[in-house]
Amino acid sequence: MKKLMHSIAAALLIGACACTPTYELMAQDTQLKQLSLEDLLSGGTNYRYTENLYGLQWWGDTCIEPGIDSLVAINPKKNKRELLTTRADINRALQAKGLGELQHLYAVRLPWPKEERILLSLPGCYAVYDWKADTAALCREYPKEAANMDYATTSGNLAYTMGNNLYVNGTAVTAEGEGIVCGQAVHRNEFGITKGTFWNAEGTLLAFYRMDESMVTQYPLVDVTARVGKADYIRYPMAGMTSHKVQVGIYNPQTGKTVYLDTGDPTDRYFTNIAWSPDSKSLYLIEVNRDQNHAKLCRYNASTGKLEATLLEETHPKYVEPQSSVVFLPWDKDKFIYQSQRDGFNHLYLYDTEGKLVRQLTQGEWMVLSVAGFNDMRHEVFITSTEQSPLQSTIYKVNTRNGKRTALNAVGGIHTPQLSASGKYLIDTYSTPTEPRDIALVQTLNGNVTGRLLTAANPYEGCVAPTVEVGTIKAADGITDLYYRLTKPADFDPAKKYPVVVYVYGGPHVQLVNDGFMHGLRPWDYYMANKGYLMFTVDNRGSSNRGLNFENATFRQLGIKECSDQLKGVEFLKSLPYVDPDRIGVHGWSFGGHMTTALMLRYPDVFKVGVAGGPVIDWAYYEVMYGERYMDTPQTNIEGYKECNLNNLAGRLKGHLLVIHGDHDPTCVPQHTLSFMKACIDARTYPDLFIYPCHQHGVTGRDSVHLHEKITRYFEDYL
Amino acid sequence: MKKLMHSIAAALLIGACACTPTYELMAQDTQLKQLSLEDLLSGGTNYRYTENLYGLQWWGDTCIEPGIDSLVAINPKKNKRELLTTRADINRALQAKGLGELQHLYAVRLPWPKEERILLSLPGCYAVYDWKADTAALCREYPKEAANMDYATTSGNLAYTMGNNLYVNGTAVTAEGEGIVCGQAVHRNEFGITKGTFWNAEGTLLAFYRMDESMVTQYPLVDVTARVGKADYIRYPMAGMTSHKVQVGIYNPQTGKTVYLDTGDPTDRYFTNIAWSPDSKSLYLIEVNRDQNHAKLCRYNASTGKLEATLLEETHPKYVEPQSSVVFLPWDKDKFIYQSQRDGFNHLYLYDTEGKLVRQLTQGEWMVLSVAGFNDMRHEVFITSTEQSPLQSTIYKVNTRNGKRTALNAVGGIHTPQLSASGKYLIDTYSTPTEPRDIALVQTLNGNVTGRLLTAANPYEGCVAPTVEVGTIKAADGITDLYYRLTKPADFDPAKKYPVVVYVYGGPHVQLVNDGFMHGLRPWDYYMANKGYLMFTVDNRGSSNRGLNFENATFRQLGIKECSDQLKGVEFLKSLPYVDPDRIGVHGWSFGGHMTTALMLRYPDVFKVGVAGGPVIDWAYYEVMYGERYMDTPQTNIEGYKECNLNNLAGRLKGHLLVIHGDHDPTCVPQHTLSFMKACIDARTYPDLFIYPCHQHGVTGRDSVHLHEKITRYFEDYL
Repeated sequence: MKKLMHSIAAALLIGACACTPTYELMAQDTQLKQLSLEDLLSGGTNYRYTENLYGLQWWGDTCIEPGIDSLVAINPKKNKRELLTTRADINRALQAKGLGELQHLYAVRLPWPKEERILLSLPGCYAVYDWKADTAALCREYPKEAANMDYATTSGNLAYTMGNNLYVNGTAVTAEGEGIVCGQAVHRNEFGITKGTFWNAEGTLLAFYRMDESMVTQYPLVDVTARVGKADYIRYPMAGMTSHKVQVGIYNPQTGKTVYLDTGDPTDRYFTNIAWSPDSKSLYLIEVNRDQNHAKLCRYNASTGKLEATLLEETHPKYVEPQSSVVFLPWDKDKFIYQSQRDGFNHLYLYDTEGKLVRQLTQGEWMVLSVAGFNDMRHEVFITSTEQSPLQSTIYKVNTRNGKRTALNAVGGIHTPQLSASGKYLIDTYSTPTEPRDIALVQTLNGNVTGRLLTAANPYEGCVAPTVEVGTIKAADGITDLYYRLTKPADFDPAKKYPVVVYVYGGPHVQLVNDGFMHGLRPWDYYMANKGYLMFTVDNRGSSNRGLNFENATFRQLGIKECSDQLKGVEFLKSLPYVDPDRIGVHGWSFGGHMTTALMLRYPDVFKVGVAGGPVIDWAYYEVMYGERYMDTPQTNIEGYKECNLNNLAGRLKGHLLVIHGDHDPTCVPQHTLSFMKACIDARTYPDLFIYPCHQHGVTGRDSVHLHEKITRYFEDYL
Repeated sequence: MKKLMHSIAAALLIGACACTPTYELMAQDTQLKQLSLEDLLSGGTNYRYTENLYGLQWWGDTCIEPGIDSLVAINPKKNKRELLTTRADINRALQAKGLGELQHLYAVRLPWPKEERILLSLPGCYAVYDWKADTAALCREYPKEAANMDYATTSGNLAYTMGNNLYVNGTAVTAEGEGIVCGQAVHRNEFGITKGTFWNAEGTLLAFYRMDESMVTQYPLVDVTARVGKADYIRYPMAGMTSHKVQVGIYNPQTGKTVYLDTGDPTDRYFTNIAWSPDSKSLYLIEVNRDQNHAKLCRYNASTGKLEATLLEETHPKYVEPQSSVVFLPWDKDKFIYQSQRDGFNHLYLYDTEGKLVRQLTQGEWMVLSVAGFNDMRHEVFITSTEQSPLQSTIYKVNTRNGKRTALNAVGGIHTPQLSASGKYLIDTYSTPTEPRDIALVQTLNGNVTGRLLTAANPYEGCVAPTVEVGTIKAADGITDLYYRLTKPADFDPAKKYPVVVYVYGGPHVQLVNDGFMHGLRPWDYYMANKGYLMFTVDNRGSSNRGLNFENATFRQLGIKECSDQLKGVEFLKSLPYVDPDRIGVHGWSFGGHMTTALMLRYPDVFKVGVAGGPVIDWAYYEVMYGERYMDTPQTNIEGYKECNLNNLAGRLKGHLLVIHGDHDPTCVPQHTLSFMKACIDARTYPDLFIYPCHQHGVTGRDSVHLHEKITRYFEDYL
C-alpha cells in the first residue's frame, strides 16, 4: 500500500468565489498539467488519491489515528498527540506467539474503551495486543474459506459463513443445501440491509437471516475465461415472478440452539431492519408486504420466537420504504428512535416500547440523513440532515427532550461524523466545493473545532481544471426546483459554441449534484471538460435527498417524468449562447443507462449521441424488491411496464447510441441490453454495443480506464 | 411462395468481353436503378431472385419439370413437352382420400421409372398419386414431431427421428436418454457426413448412426427472449478435449432387430462415408483415427456386424480427409469407385471388393469434384472436375475401361449435372460469368444440347452494376498462382483514388473466386462497389479446389500463410494507381472472421478498418473434428496454437475492428469473440463489438439486411 501523508498547509484552490445560485470554481492558466484518465480514475496507474486518514476511530473519548507504522492517541479537547504503540512492537509480540505480522495499522480496532487492548484482524484469526503489557494473544481462529466475519467484541464469539451456511466459533449453525443461504444479506440488499448476522449487545445471541431461494429462477452469466465457456448461475427473482422466502433465526452459542421467529408464512414478505432490544429479550424488525405499501414494526420474543407486539404500522398509496433500524436511547431502555417519511420527509420519532409515540423529534421540509449517536449525559442525539441545503449534509445535535437542534461545524459541504463514546466529541470528515477532504475534531458542547487532523491537498493541484457552476432550473411541472451542475473547460470562451454531454442517473437513492468537492464532479466529467466539452448534470424528480413527494412522483412510470425533467435541462442548455444545440450527448449507467437510452429514443432529435451503461431496458427484467417498489408488478401495472419498456421504442433510435454491459452483471442482467439489441434489429435501427467480460454492474478497477477511454472515443467520433 | 417464371429470351449482359487473365463485365450508364440491400440480399423485402426451375428431375429418361400448377414431361431427345398432370387433378384425388392438398408441385418426386406414380410429401404423411388412374393413396404416416425423414421408395419403409431417438414406421428403433443421439448426422457434419440414416437399395435394412455425447462438455448459449434468460446447452467437444463416441447400427424392420457393427472401442475414432454393397450383405465405411492421419476402408458383415476386411488404408504426415463414400459400378457389383487425394489431387480409383486396385480412372493436376452417375450400357462414369480451370466445374464422361474423358457442354462456368436413369441424358444447370443460370438438356453420347429449359435473366438488369475482373497474382511463396477478383464501381475513373475493402474467407473447403455468375461476386460487394469502393478477394493457399498441397500448406499454423498471401493481394492493390493505399479495409466471416482479425493484428499499419463476423479467435475453442484436422491438438501443437491464438495479438490492434457474433452460434461459440474482447481490454486496445441475439453462425433471413447495413456503416464511418 502506498504511503499516504497529510500536509497541514495544503494549498487551497484558486479563485473560488461563491455567488448564489451560480458560482465558479478554479481558474487556471495553460502551463498546467493535463490530467489523463490514468490520473483521474481510481483504477488508473497514476490515480491521484485525495489524502485521507484511514482507520480513524474513537477509543472511549480518545481519538485514535492509525498510520502504517504507528498508532497515535489524540486528546480531542487539547488536540494533544501521543504515540500509543508501533507496528514494530505489535509485530514482535505477534511473532512471539506465531501469529504472523501486520503490514500496516489502518485496520486495527479499539473496541474496549476501558482496556489498553487493540483488536487485530490477521489471516485466519483475530488477536489482541496489550500495549501496556506488550503481549499479544489469539482470540479466535477461522477457516480460510470463511466470509462475512462478525466478531462480537463483548463476548469474543465469531460468526461467519462458509458457502451458503452459517458458523459460530467453528460450529455449524445451519446445514442447508444449495438454494438456501444463511447468515448473509437478503432481499437483494434493499431496505437498508447490508449484512446477515446481528449480535446482541453482550455478543451472546446471534440473530441471522435464512433465505430459501430454491424456488427462484436462475439466470446464467457465461464465464468465457473457463476452458469451455460455462454458465455461472445467479438466483434472480424478476418483477412479478416467484420470489425467495426469508426467515430470521436466533442462535445461542451457549446452548447450540436456534429459534426461528414465528412470523407465519414468509411468502411475499420482507423482514427488514433487525435490531436487538437493549436487554436482549426482544428482537425488533420491520415487516413489509410484497406490494411495499404496508410496513409494520414488530417485536418478537427472542427466547420463544413469538410475536410480542406490532408496535406501529405505516401505509402509503405508493410505497413505504423503511431503511433504518430502531435505535434505543442509551439513557432510557424503554424508548427508541424510529425514522419515517410519513410527513413527506425522513424524520425522527421517539417511541416507547409499547409503540406509543412520545414525540416527533425533528420536523421540516428537509431530511434526516443518518443517526450518528448520542450524548448520554445531555440526552442528545446526533444526526446529519439536509436542513442547510438539499446539497449538503450537516451535523446537528438534537435535544431529545424538546427537539432543539444545533448545527455543528456548519461550514457547508458534506459532513460525516464519528461520535466519541460519551458523545462529547466527534470526528468530522467533510468536503466542500473547494476542499476535497477536511477532518476536524469537534467539541459537541459548543461546536468548537478543537483540532484539525487533515486538510487534504487538492489532488488536481497544478493541473488544468474545469470550472464548475451550480444552479437551479424548474422541473417539467413548472414548480419544482432542480439542481444542476454545469462544468466548463478551463479555457472556456463564451463567444464559442460548445458541444455538451449530459451525465445522468435520475433514479431513487442517488443525488449527483451536491456541495462536496467540486460539487460532486465526476472524474470523467473533469476529463471531458478538459477536452473541450461542456458537462451538464441535473438531478430530476425521482432522485434523492429532496423528500418523498419529489421521489415518488415517478411511481409506476419510471423514466417518464425523469426524462421530461432532463429535457428541461436541455432547454436550459439551449438557452445558453455558447451551447451548440446540434451537439448534445448523454451518458449514464444503470438507472442512468435507462435514462440515456430513454432520452435517445424519446427525443431522437435532441440527443445526437448517447452512451448507456448497464441499462435497465424492461423493468420486467429487473428484480422484485427494487423494481416492484416503484413499478408494482407487470401483472398489476400492465400499461406502466409497456410505456417504460424501451424495447417498445427501439424503432425510434436515430442518433448514435452505444450500450455497454458487463457480462457478469448480477444487478441488471445482460438480458436488458441484449433484448434491446434484438428489438433494434427487429425495428431496423442501429445501436452500438460493447460487452465487458467478467465485469459485474460496474466496470471497476483497472478496466475502468478502458471503459472511459471507450466512452470518450465514442463521443469524439460522433458528437 | 412467389411464382417463379422463366423467360426464354432472357436479356444477356452488355459488354462482356473476356481477355485472359483479366477481363471486364458490364458497362452501364447513370440512368440505371441503384440496388439496395433489400434488393440484393435474399432476406431483403425486394430480393431479386435469379430465375430457377425447382424440382427438375428425371423419371427414367424423361425429364420432369414441376411448376406450381402443372407437371410437364419432356422428352430429352426431341425436347418435346407434354403435360403429365396438374395440381388440380392431384388435389382432387388427395381430397377424395382426406389427405389434404398441395400448394405447389415443386417438391413432388418420381422415383419409380416404370410406374406412373408420383410420390407426394404431405404434412404428416407420404402419399402417391397415379396419374393414369387419377387416384391417390396413403403410403406412410408419421408424427408431427418427426424430423430427418428418410423414405425408402423401394420398400415404403420410413425412418425418422423424434428428439434424440430413431423410429421406423412408428416403431422405436432406439430408446436412449439425453446425451445419446440416434439417426442423425454425427462428427459435426465433417467427413462429408450430412445425415444419419442409410437404407439399403431394397429399403429393407437401415444403417444408422448412434452418437454418445454424454461425456462432451456443454456450452451455454443464452436465450434472451425467454421470460428469464436461459442457457440453451450444446454439447461441443473442443480441440484436445474428450469427444463423443459413435457407433453404426443396422436395423431390420422385418425382424425388429438391430445389429451394431463390431468396431471395437469407438473412443477417438471417426466412422464415415457409409455405403451399402449392392447385394446388401455388407456395409462399407471409412474409419479415421482421431489424429486424422490414417484412414481405412472397411467392409462389415451386415448380418453379424463383424469386420470382414480392411480393404485399403491411407496415411499422410499431415492429414487424410475422406469425404466420399464408395460407389459401385452398376454393371459390375464386385467393383467400386473410391476417391482419394493420395497423388495430390482428388481422383477416382477403381477397386474390386477384395481391395485390389483395378486402375486409377482419372489423373492430373486437377480435381474430381463429384461423381454424378453412370451410363450402364457404355460403362461410363460421369464426373465434374476442375480440369478446364480451377475456377470452373466441368462435366465429363469417363470411360471406366480406359479412362478416356470427354467434356460435355464445356462452355465454361460452374456446371451441376443430373443424370437420367440410363445415363443417356443429363440436365446441366450452370452459370458463367455472364449468365446467372442456364439449364440445358444434354445428350451424353455426343454432347449435343438437345434442349434449353432455362436461360435466366440477369436479376440486376437495368440496374447500376459494377465491373468485375479476375486475374492471378503470386502467393507469398513466390511460386503459386492465386486467383483474385477485383470489382470496380460502374463509374470507375482510373484517375481517382479509391478505398478498397478486401473480402476474405481463406479457409479449407471454400473458394470465393470462380467462373460462376459475375465470378462469384457477393451481393454486398456489389452494393459496396456501387457506393464507390473497390472490392477485392483473393483465394489464398489453404482454400479449396487447388489440390492437397495448396490446401495443407497451412497445416498446424492456420492463418499464418493465409495472411501472408492476403498481404500479397494488398501489395498488388497498392501497385494499382487508382488504389488509395491509406484506405484499405477487410471483412470476412467465420474462418474469414479469423482472417480479418488476424490481418488487422498482424498488419496493423496496412488495414485501417476491419469487420470480423463469427470469428475463430483461439483454435482451442473450436471443435475437435475440423480443428484437429488442421491444427492437431493444443497438447501436441503447443507452439502452433499459441501463434494462431489471436488473443495473444490483441495488444497490436490499431485500426477500427468491429467483431460481430451470433449469440446462438453453435459452430464457432461466442467465447471466441468475448474472450477477444477481454484480451483487448486487458491489453488496452479498442475493438468494437456487435451481437446478433438468436442468430447462429450466420445472420440469415431478414436480419441479413440489418447486418450488412451495420457493416456498411462501419466502413463508411471509419474507412
